[in-house]
Amino acid sequence: MTITTEQSAPPGFDFNEEIYRELNRTFASLSAQCRKYGPEFSACLDSAFQALRGGKLVRPRMLLGTYHAMASDKSNNQDNALHIAVATELLHFSFLVHDDVIDGDLYRRGKLNFIGHILQQRDPENFSDTGPDPEHLHWARSNGILIGNLFLAATHQIFARLDLPHAQRLRMLDLLEHTMNDSVAGEFLDVGLSCKAISPHMGTALEMSRLKTATYTFELPLRAAAILAGLPEEDELRVGDIGKNLGTAYQLQDDYLSTFGQAAEHGKDSFSDLREGKETTIINFARDTDLWPEIAVDFGKNDLTTTQAEAIKRLLQDCGAETFSRNMIQQHLDDCRESIRALSSSVSRDVIDMLLHQVDQLASRRS
Amino acid sequence: MTITTEQSAPPGFDFNEEIYRELNRTFASLSAQCRKYGPEFSACLDSAFQALRGGKLVRPRMLLGTYHAMASDKSNNQDNALHIAVATELLHFSFLVHDDVIDGDLYRRGKLNFIGHILQQRDPENFSDTGPDPEHLHWARSNGILIGNLFLAATHQIFARLDLPHAQRLRMLDLLEHTMNDSVAGEFLDVGLSCKAISPHMGTALEMSRLKTATYTFELPLRAAAILAGLPEEDELRVGDIGKNLGTAYQLQDDYLSTFGQAAEHGKDSFSDLREGKETTIINFARDTDLWPEIAVDFGKNDLTTTQAEAIKRLLQDCGAETFSRNMIQQHLDDCRESIRALSSSVSRDVIDMLLHQVDQLASRRS
Repeated sequence: MTITTEQSAPPGFDFNEEIYRELNRTFASLSAQCRKYGPEFSACLDSAFQALRGGKLVRPRMLLGTYHAMASDKSNNQDNALHIAVATELLHFSFLVHDDVIDGDLYRRGKLNFIGHILQQRDPENFSDTGPDPEHLHWARSNGILIGNLFLAATHQIFARLDLPHAQRLRMLDLLEHTMNDSVAGEFLDVGLSCKAISPHMGTALEMSRLKTATYTFELPLRAAAILAGLPEEDELRVGDIGKNLGTAYQLQDDYLSTFGQAAEHGKDSFSDLREGKETTIINFARDTDLWPEIAVDFGKNDLTTTQAEAIKRLLQDCGAETFSRNMIQQHLDDCRESIRALSSSVSRDVIDMLLHQVDQLASRRS
Repeated sequence: MTITTEQSAPPGFDFNEEIYRELNRTFASLSAQCRKYGPEFSACLDSAFQALRGGKLVRPRMLLGTYHAMASDKSNNQDNALHIAVATELLHFSFLVHDDVIDGDLYRRGKLNFIGHILQQRDPENFSDTGPDPEHLHWARSNGILIGNLFLAATHQIFARLDLPHAQRLRMLDLLEHTMNDSVAGEFLDVGLSCKAISPHMGTALEMSRLKTATYTFELPLRAAAILAGLPEEDELRVGDIGKNLGTAYQLQDDYLSTFGQAAEHGKDSFSDLREGKETTIINFARDTDLWPEIAVDFGKNDLTTTQAEAIKRLLQDCGAETFSRNMIQQHLDDCRESIRALSSSVSRDVIDMLLHQVDQLASRRS
């Protein structure tokens, strides 16, 4: 996920070095605490750190960028902002690993994920990701659950240790609680929809995406920045609403790009959503059209051919799902811009520009 | 797990009603927060609450009992003690559910556990716990991971929201961090030993038990009580050491009773440890004796007959493992009593009596 790239970030908004320094400090401290548990646990932690280090730092960078644009006295909560920025990355990693356990995935973006690495380390000579030894797989997934828990705890510890006035600290804890609830419920809906324990309808699929990813990716960093910058609660919530819209637009784009985008650009297996029978917003729309019976014939087939997939793609265009999806994305981005401009009475021009820049970045996203 | 029963608790030490009132309040608040996620998520939460309600409240009762014996001004942190007492129960539930996911268990103490309940609800008519539908099982286990995460977060929120002086709050957070690290590492060692990713030796097996269960069951409630009662850090640590010894004695008893105890009393499948090939402290000892080759022939066999199991049991007695185990338990209980008496300079007679009472309860444990 790349939103603000180094090239396109406004000047002064490249925090990678600062974030990595703090991440390394956090790792070193956790490693030192855990050394007493033996070499196997230390090796597992090291693998987790290595997997985490590959991240693009979208959330911490958004948080720091927003904080620095918002804070009038920048030095006041600068350290706290950096700590919470790192916490958002730990939380992200914890969610990714638990999702991979739940989905049974060994890869992420074409590379072995944390679980895949543990599996490979368990028996390098006979490593096979197609039919792995069930006991080795059990070991690797258990590692995933436990490391996810450790990072979830570490995230909460960072929030809990903020040395802020009690009321401000409670606002940060409320935000973390809201984030956890949304993310857990979002993943619950995601699994429930895909294994048919919950019946699909438009509201649920879009809501699921928003809860599962948008809250912790967009709302959390933006609202945390607002609280730490000393903005009053009503502004924090308005910034949070902008984050919600950005997040929904991002998820809608994901659905759009994975169905209608160019595989080479977005790096995903083309048609994997169609092959998996994923309940995207596009499929949700198509279900209520006259063309659905035709789409349904091949939709969700494991062995979908390129010809069949291209046919579904055309049917999705013909039934109006592509136009619907494009319009929805546009509408959410327009809503974002409008809400950002409406902030102008309470925040500086820098903040407005920075947020509008985020929207532009999202609008031009092709992968 | 029953340590302090209502009958045998010193007068005034029955806190069940108070704990359940606070647990219900916590449930109601979490339920209200989560209502917006739809009826399926609410139903899942309700099932979790129902499963949690079956607990014996060992940890919260130990915490409150110790706090009330230690606190000179009882009203001062009484509410905080109750909140943390409830947090220990939520943490316990979170660990149980994640353990059940990892071990693939659908039962606990002969009854369907949370995951088993979700599985049964998914398809009541075709419910089968012997060969469940893999997709339904996937759904039930995903529920387990997610609910475990929600309760882990709730535990941390309760600790984080304590309105205490900053230094005292940090001591509580250090204790929670230490507890999480130990428990995660303990479960890691447990899984690693049972799937042979970690090689067994005496230190590891005993250490595993201590980390996985003793820390959060004994050390956490005792040290939390000490901090909230205003004891200085050195006394908190001494009380923590007593908890460590109590916990180790408890784990050693578990190993002893499941191998040499009467099935009717301890309620476990007799010989299940021998059948599963569990690396108990007893087996660890036996491995280094001359009789091990004889024991190893049938140890860990799924289809172990009663005759074979009785033969192993006799070999374990003959090789000295039973005596060793009994002596170890005795030694840990004696150490506890000694450390408790050594507290006498800094705590009241009530505290000494209460802690000695806990040791006596443990010493007379037969199941």
